[in-house]
Amino acid sequence: MAFRASVLTLYPEMFPGPLGASLAGEGLRTGLWSLETHQIREHGIGRHRNVDDTPAGGGAGMVLRCDVLAAAIDAAVPENDTRPRLLMSPRGRPLSQRMVRDYVAGEGVVIVCGRFEGVDERVIEGRGLTEVSVGDYILSGGEMAAMVLLDACVRLIPGVMGKEASGTEESFENGLLEYPHYTRPREWEGRGLPEALLSGDHARIARWRRERAEQITRERRPDLLNPSPLGGEGGSAKR
Amino acid sequence: MAFRASVLTLYPEMFPGPLGASLAGEGLRTGLWSLETHQIREHGIGRHRNVDDTPAGGGAGMVLRCDVLAAAIDAAVPENDTRPRLLMSPRGRPLSQRMVRDYVAGEGVVIVCGRFEGVDERVIEGRGLTEVSVGDYILSGGEMAAMVLLDACVRLIPGVMGKEASGTEESFENGLLEYPHYTRPREWEGRGLPEALLSGDHARIARWRRERAEQITRERRPDLLNPSPLGGEGGSAKR
Repeated sequence: MAFRASVLTLYPEMFPGPLGASLAGEGLRTGLWSLETHQIREHGIGRHRNVDDTPAGGGAGMVLRCDVLAAAIDAAVPENDTRPRLLMSPRGRPLSQRMVRDYVAGEGVVIVCGRFEGVDERVIEGRGLTEVSVGDYILSGGEMAAMVLLDACVRLIPGVMGKEASGTEESFENGLLEYPHYTRPREWEGRGLPEALLSGDHARIARWRRERAEQITRERRPDLLNPSPLGGEGGSAKR
Repeated sequence: MAFRASVLTLYPEMFPGPLGASLAGEGLRTGLWSLETHQIREHGIGRHRNVDDTPAGGGAGMVLRCDVLAAAIDAAVPENDTRPRLLMSPRGRPLSQRMVRDYVAGEGVVIVCGRFEGVDERVIEGRGLTEVSVGDYILSGGEMAAMVLLDACVRLIPGVMGKEASGTEESFENGLLEYPHYTRPREWEGRGLPEALLSGDHARIARWRRERAEQITRERRPDLLNPSPLGGEGGSAKR
């Protein structure tokens, strides 16, 4: 069964957006994956379909109501739907390539996009949402985070990337950042190509790439080499 | 001067995409920030405007040519343009809220979106590109990463968020994940509100929020509390 993405959002018009272009878009049109959006506001309260209210205890911003979001989830996702239910949130578990692979191995994902200050904590527990973060920064809402997660998933769906797929030699797939790439021309603005790459010696090329990947990872992201129990690579983190 | 974003991409039609909706889109239309896209392919080679070639040393995938990308950058960005030139790349420095604040304090950003296997390493040095990563996962290209970076920036531009802006009490702004939020109704599916939030005692509420933020951070992201010199919070990482 093809990978199915269900997105709950206050901005369904943002989708598929960039996911409708390039190879992800082609995969969408040819049925390699599917995307449906659900407007949370349809379950809003009263004539104005209110979805949010002021924070209990005071403070700035508005909080998405738990009853509204729960109603939207219940309407969009059948109870026997076993797909993971994700809430994009900077408080969540950092998305890793390992998590992406796990999602792609399943039947798809349900993604709730928050907006405003946050969502009422009770719906996270009450509807079994898993908070996932795409990075340590704040977005205006979960929509772009959802697109990032879906793009990362979709490119791994068999058939989507075609011959552009680069297999397994990629950043994080082996726990390292990727080695540097070069192509034609052989000389550009006085800069040549690394000698090893011109040698035609496959073992030497592989060794050079491995060494460069290790060096770059050591210099830029030593946290990937010595992951802490919960942070670091992230893919192995459980909570 | 308003925040100016210049994006070099093979998919200019993806923009503004989701950045054209909601408050970011309103800010774009009212001139609080500006976005221009530049088609890298216009600087491609030959009749077919080729932009990529096979990797030196062999291997899967295609690599963006340094001469093509350099020509696109030179045409899009005047030499005296002092905006940071970013290359969205999983090998880059992890984007943090602190980096976002730094970008917003400046005149804007130039963003190069890679595609395929990667870009020829020589153009990164030759054109002074700074590699920035939005997270430890692989995307089909830099476009969605660019949108994430821009969304994070744009919401901090004065006037964009209006009264939905929540000030400084947010994840990462104080080095902690955010405390849980609650709103009406007071009781939902047997779940009430934390007593502290109903007390009306502002000092007690502030203390409760602080303790919960610390607890959540300790449980989920101990790496934020004990940042490694290069990893962790990321915002203070220099390389």
